[in-house]
Amino acid sequence: MFAPAYFDYNATTPLDARVLEAMLPWLQARHGNASSRHEYGRAARAAVDEARERVAAAVGAHKSEVAFTSGGSEANNLFIKGVAAGLKPGLIAISAIEHPCVREPARQLRRLGWRVAELGVDAQGTVDPAALDAALGDGAAIVSVMLANNETGTINDVAALAACARGRRAWFHTDAVQALGKMAVNFRALGVHALSVSAHKLGGPQGVGALVVDKRVELQPLIAGGGQERGLRSGTENVAGIVGFGAACEYALADQAERAQRLSGLRDRIEAGLAARGARLFGANAPARLPNTTFCAFPDIDGETLVAQLDRAGFAVASGSACSSANPEPSHTLLAMGVAPDIAKSAVRVSLGAQTDEAQVERFLLVLDELLRRLQRMAAVAV
Amino acid sequence: MFAPAYFDYNATTPLDARVLEAMLPWLQARHGNASSRHEYGRAARAAVDEARERVAAAVGAHKSEVAFTSGGSEANNLFIKGVAAGLKPGLIAISAIEHPCVREPARQLRRLGWRVAELGVDAQGTVDPAALDAALGDGAAIVSVMLANNETGTINDVAALAACARGRRAWFHTDAVQALGKMAVNFRALGVHALSVSAHKLGGPQGVGALVVDKRVELQPLIAGGGQERGLRSGTENVAGIVGFGAACEYALADQAERAQRLSGLRDRIEAGLAARGARLFGANAPARLPNTTFCAFPDIDGETLVAQLDRAGFAVASGSACSSANPEPSHTLLAMGVAPDIAKSAVRVSLGAQTDEAQVERFLLVLDELLRRLQRMAAVAV
Repeated sequence: MFAPAYFDYNATTPLDARVLEAMLPWLQARHGNASSRHEYGRAARAAVDEARERVAAAVGAHKSEVAFTSGGSEANNLFIKGVAAGLKPGLIAISAIEHPCVREPARQLRRLGWRVAELGVDAQGTVDPAALDAALGDGAAIVSVMLANNETGTINDVAALAACARGRRAWFHTDAVQALGKMAVNFRALGVHALSVSAHKLGGPQGVGALVVDKRVELQPLIAGGGQERGLRSGTENVAGIVGFGAACEYALADQAERAQRLSGLRDRIEAGLAARGARLFGANAPARLPNTTFCAFPDIDGETLVAQLDRAGFAVASGSACSSANPEPSHTLLAMGVAPDIAKSAVRVSLGAQTDEAQVERFLLVLDELLRRLQRMAAVAV
Repeated sequence: MFAPAYFDYNATTPLDARVLEAMLPWLQARHGNASSRHEYGRAARAAVDEARERVAAAVGAHKSEVAFTSGGSEANNLFIKGVAAGLKPGLIAISAIEHPCVREPARQLRRLGWRVAELGVDAQGTVDPAALDAALGDGAAIVSVMLANNETGTINDVAALAACARGRRAWFHTDAVQALGKMAVNFRALGVHALSVSAHKLGGPQGVGALVVDKRVELQPLIAGGGQERGLRSGTENVAGIVGFGAACEYALADQAERAQRLSGLRDRIEAGLAARGARLFGANAPARLPNTTFCAFPDIDGETLVAQLDRAGFAVASGSACSSANPEPSHTLLAMGVAPDIAKSAVRVSLGAQTDEAQVERFLLVLDELLRRLQRMAAVAV
């Protein structure tokens, strides 16, 4: 089977083979319900507890602050709706570049009487703490600003934003789904009340994530029932998935700095190549950004078309976030950064990861040359 | 490693080895995000679609009626809260023997102004359609009554209950988590608006389930975001888990009738043995019940103690549902059936499944003899 080069790590990552190894016993002989009292159940409970410690260690939190969920989208919804359910309707402030799984819950709160403030970003995609401070009044408020953007890789100064929110007595949450495994993430240092993470963005399985949350936050569960996860998230634990998340944290964090350095070298090589071929790079001048992500556009070349051509030529890249792939609208992140809609429609995202190597990158640039020549010729004929 | 005989299939089932085989490619080379447009993403999407057809076929529904979730608890919460969010507060009627993941969401609705009617059950654990009819007025109403009870295995006449609810223009949901794989489940024949199912109860993986729902029902999502699952449930699809669910449906349904006959034979052997040793059987005279489940009590012997002794002797059984294992209260199902609290505290559940064999059953009855002698001697000394 022909395997295209995978340059879409921000959408999902290959499962680390060591992580699968760690999961397999829980998909075979060790099949307990972690709430059962017998040997099978106790073994499952111990495995979940160990994974909880690993995830907690990866984000600098205490294991009692980690609530496992089915992924990042659930964690974001859990925080936003879970906090709101215990408050009188007030203000929810989110940035203009949040993932839909933050924007949509905020929109749902609007129907319950909440006001939604959308914080703008600068041309590099970062949120200004002063803008957050100006948006917050003194009433009940929830703030959610992502740590690293899924499309541009731009990193926000979440510690400063969280400090500002705390000064206004607001609850501060950050979506750290794209950050974990690509940069240091520390719950205490960030000073947030909660953060969301997801296993499949760092070599773990799909279908498992966590909300890391300060125990002083009162949260109503989205999924109520048997009372698992300290009552924050009921349902039989996905033991194999949780074990895989723990293992993925351990492996991804062990060589994170080294991998970040290697990937930023490959990313720089790609970006130099793209710029030399006339691409515009988005967020590349941000004060801080992820080491693996390039978001760019070739004016006059439709992003979807380029992605489809690259796919046929053996390179899996994205025209934006996977979640918006079904949506023909230009990236809301780019529009918020002031990019013109026709340029935004040309956007292509390249995101690298553990298995990306230099040969793939060089081959990519060669193939791109040929595709660009063909597409530019077609564009010229069309005009 | 010593592997105790597993008699707790209602808590969770071993993953069918053929199901794991079907999942493995999606945990290895085929690592796409099902929303991505490239080759990896399209392959993942096709696999999710195929699994959706399999799950739909297993419950006699159309694939467009299947929304994948992270499990049964989420499916139950999604229906109850999702329907309620679009209605003015009215009445929610649930049976007294529902799983906590139905009872707790109903309790959450109470805080939003809903009235909760709890429908009693008879001594065998079944709900009377006339009682439902009497409880329903003419205002907005939601009804949830489980198809088969997790503790007793008692089967409700859901078709009659659903017809009654429809006559009152109420939305009817059934928790079919314990039913699927153990009895025929047909969405159309039951006439319900929605039903919940879970993969890990029929040889599939933990962490995946589905809400099968009539498309005329307006549902607000619990997890809003990227718009996956027709907007009913956002979040990157757990491709391997969903594929496993589809495979589990196919395998479990293929020999369901045969397995049911075999297991009911083993169950009858166990129940005859238990009765001969002085046990009281719960729900054994219900008009219909699951073929694999025995719920019983030896008066004067504490259920937890017997479960712990059986565990040491190599038999994994439960003192009730796994979800209530952390809870020292007697089974709410038994109390609703009119069983005295001190008898209910003696309850032990034995639930059989695909890998249970006759030798295990015979060994179980032998070991039980010895344990009962010891425990009854201790009880006599204590008195």
